[in-house]
Amino acid sequence: MLTKIRIPIIIVNFKTYSEATGKKAVELAKTAEKVSLETEVCIGLAPQFVDIMPVANAVSLPVFAQHIDTIKPGSFTGHVLAESVKEAGAVGTLINHSEMQLKLADIDATITRAREVNLTSVVCADSAAVSASVAKFKPNMIAVEPPELIGTGIPVAKAKPEVVTGAVRVVKQINPDVVVLCGAGLTKGEDVAAALRLGTEGVLVASGIVKAKAPYKVLLEFAENITKV
Amino acid sequence: MLTKIRIPIIIVNFKTYSEATGKKAVELAKTAEKVSLETEVCIGLAPQFVDIMPVANAVSLPVFAQHIDTIKPGSFTGHVLAESVKEAGAVGTLINHSEMQLKLADIDATITRAREVNLTSVVCADSAAVSASVAKFKPNMIAVEPPELIGTGIPVAKAKPEVVTGAVRVVKQINPDVVVLCGAGLTKGEDVAAALRLGTEGVLVASGIVKAKAPYKVLLEFAENITKV
Amino acid sequence: MLTKIRIPIIIVNFKTYSEATGKKAVELAKTAEKVSLETEVCIGLAPQFVDIMPVANAVSLPVFAQHIDTIKPGSFTGHVLAESVKEAGAVGTLINHSEMQLKLADIDATITRAREVNLTSVVCADSAAVSASVAKFKPNMIAVEPPELIGTGIPVAKAKPEVVTGAVRVVKQINPDVVVLCGAGLTKGEDVAAALRLGTEGVLVASGIVKAKAPYKVLLEFAENITKV
Amino acid sequence: MLTKIRIPIIIVNFKTYSEATGKKAVELAKTAEKVSLETEVCIGLAPQFVDIMPVANAVSLPVFAQHIDTIKPGSFTGHVLAESVKEAGAVGTLINHSEMQLKLADIDATITRAREVNLTSVVCADSAAVSASVAKFKPNMIAVEPPELIGTGIPVAKAKPEVVTGAVRVVKQINPDVVVLCGAGLTKGEDVAAALRLGTEGVLVASGIVKAKAPYKVLLEFAENITKV
Repeated sequence: MLTKIRIPIIIVNFKTYSEATGKKAVELAKTAEKVSLETEVCIGLAPQFVDIMPVANAVSLPVFAQHIDTIKPGSFTGHVLAESVKEAGAVGTLINHSEMQLKLADIDATITRAREVNLTSVVCADSAAVSASVAKFKPNMIAVEPPELIGTGIPVAKAKPEVVTGAVRVVKQINPDVVVLCGAGLTKGEDVAAALRLGTEGVLVASGIVKAKAPYKVLLEFAENITKV
Repeated sequence: MLTKIRIPIIIVNFKTYSEATGKKAVELAKTAEKVSLETEVCIGLAPQFVDIMPVANAVSLPVFAQHIDTIKPGSFTGHVLAESVKEAGAVGTLINHSEMQLKLADIDATITRAREVNLTSVVCADSAAVSASVAKFKPNMIAVEPPELIGTGIPVAKAKPEVVTGAVRVVKQINPDVVVLCGAGLTKGEDVAAALRLGTEGVLVASGIVKAKAPYKVLLEFAENITKV
Repeated sequence: MLTKIRIPIIIVNFKTYSEATGKKAVELAKTAEKVSLETEVCIGLAPQFVDIMPVANAVSLPVFAQHIDTIKPGSFTGHVLAESVKEAGAVGTLINHSEMQLKLADIDATITRAREVNLTSVVCADSAAVSASVAKFKPNMIAVEPPELIGTGIPVAKAKPEVVTGAVRVVKQINPDVVVLCGAGLTKGEDVAAALRLGTEGVLVASGIVKAKAPYKVLLEFAENITKV
Repeated sequence: MLTKIRIPIIIVNFKTYSEATGKKAVELAKTAEKVSLETEVCIGLAPQFVDIMPVANAVSLPVFAQHIDTIKPGSFTGHVLAESVKEAGAVGTLINHSEMQLKLADIDATITRAREVNLTSVVCADSAAVSASVAKFKPNMIAVEPPELIGTGIPVAKAKPEVVTGAVRVVKQINPDVVVLCGAGLTKGEDVAAALRLGTEGVLVASGIVKAKAPYKVLLEFAENITKV
């Protein structure tokens, strides 16, 4: 079943790009599903909150929220409830993306909330030290992304391989069950292959796919490079 | 057409109550639609982000987001884009709810974003002075809610009538086109009638309806009291 | 007495510039005092929190905090208590600077705190609309500063005169007792004269003085231009 | 020299209590100095920002800021610069107190800033897991404080000994050089003795001393119990 999260994985963060909003979010999801079916590589999708349900209804791929709040059901307005994104069809959630940074205690609390409703937690970290710090809270996955490379087209595995290998080493030392992904600056298949050769089990990508002229082609290249490694 | 916003209006804030999440959000929306059809009173619904689309698809009532961010389409993760909630079916948005307070400059910017995508802006204020302050930014509606009364069952129109009349007076002085609502502690039809007699053109209600044993009955009472005034 | 706040006024925001930290804050304060004595123009100083006391002890000029929190005495760590800055020698405080923006309700609460301990409140606003909004809370002064001009050397009175005249008009309409200052991009005496000709009663300046090669000379020029208008 | 930080240590957080503000901060500091001289126990003091200099000038005890920001010298208003608190006389700083919680990446950055200006970093954590997480950033000290016990008079070493022993174990495992303190609910000498017996090397205390009827007597009891263990 394609909605099951498998390793290695490519997670595509749709952000709030207009190319991945509303109907276009669903279209991009279908493109990703096609690649996943052809290559048998697991592709996760992280659309905006309002697009979780239509995306989850349209394709059989694991859908992630971009963020959830620490709150429980109750008197909160404008917050994102773990139970709600779950019911809408998400199977996981990003946590602490560099564009949505959390207080330390809230990272712990958010991972706990995700666990309570059975959402896979993917915590973002900007360095090996932060990855190690986060690993202590036992998330399912950690995605290390140097924020200064995000959206640059300079792939992390080339520009800062030591951040990636450092993150893999310290995280696995603390908890070998935590899956380590990396991201930032990925635009080509070889960037993905390089990331996996550094010990990661997948990538977190956004503009490299969403803003590509031919998302199908680039995502296919990503997936094929994953199967090669 | 029921999705058109008309005055007087009852806006029901679903918050993150489990009684108004996911399928239950849709059920509550249908209950509200029934009351609206029977009484011809306009009832707006403010469900969680993920529930905007299913609610908007299920009923012909105006749907509001509980919050939108000031961002434009682009590289933002976990944010709420005005264009997205609009495409999902919302026709308006709450802004600056006491449970989601904004910086002053962001209130101005959020009202502008709402206007840009043609969402009706309903800015919450906790006092007459804050209502006056907010009126300067020309939102469509201002909902004055003393936060200390929210969820108490002590209706604002009885406990603090001077806050309501004060807000109506100062807002209308600045801009007679701005619709003034009030909220907090409303549980009975007479609370709504009292609110309208103080010069408001509607109410913002949450637990009084969402957590009522018989939401249909209470909402009907609310609507009938509106038509009486 | 020089520590009394008089109109027109030049307020120098020391920010966290190294040129205006610690001993250098005291030196700059003495330079300002010299100019104030020579020109009889009121010059206010807004040093960092830790420098309020040494600056207030060293010179007879009105000292402002750069920010205070809304808290009252009690169990708060790392917060800035109105009573503390008062006891340290401040006679006023900046509020809602564009580098320390507050939630709307907190601006109201901070002005109230300032009033309670008899600190003159100087609320910053980035536009005429925000100035009008803030005027409703009856601060003592409003300093309008388009944030995009801060630190640029492009004076607000030249680049955006309509923002300044707009702020003066709307604020005085709401409450003629509120003093209107303007700031951003001021580096020359003529910028100050221009600001006053647009109807303001003073300026808020930072890098134009703090980072000037000869702060005495520039500040003297500022003060002389104030006396000319 | 008394201003040197030695282990074991009692750090007194003055918070924004009126009993420890301005002149009263200096008085309390002198009381602490008397106890430190009599017992030879190291007592650190964490007054409000404006009180760092007068306290550091009045006594020969190590003074801590309650918080510093991650900023470097430059264009920031209302922020707390590491260099400033250092120049004012502080030798260390609290970081991430439960009343001033930071984003994860900012904890890392703040510890780095403290190291750059040679301030001893004391990072607060609310659990053993958070302590372990923080230890990865190599602060000088970690103070574990279950926030629900702060100000209660229920001592952490009695109510939650497993949090304290857990924090000591995980922190020392990661980095044996990091000093572990504990706090929350301490009001008696025996609470301090219990804390040290659980493996900590000192305590962080606030209301237990600041709001005591006889601070000298209680602080003396604290210090004597430290020398006994």
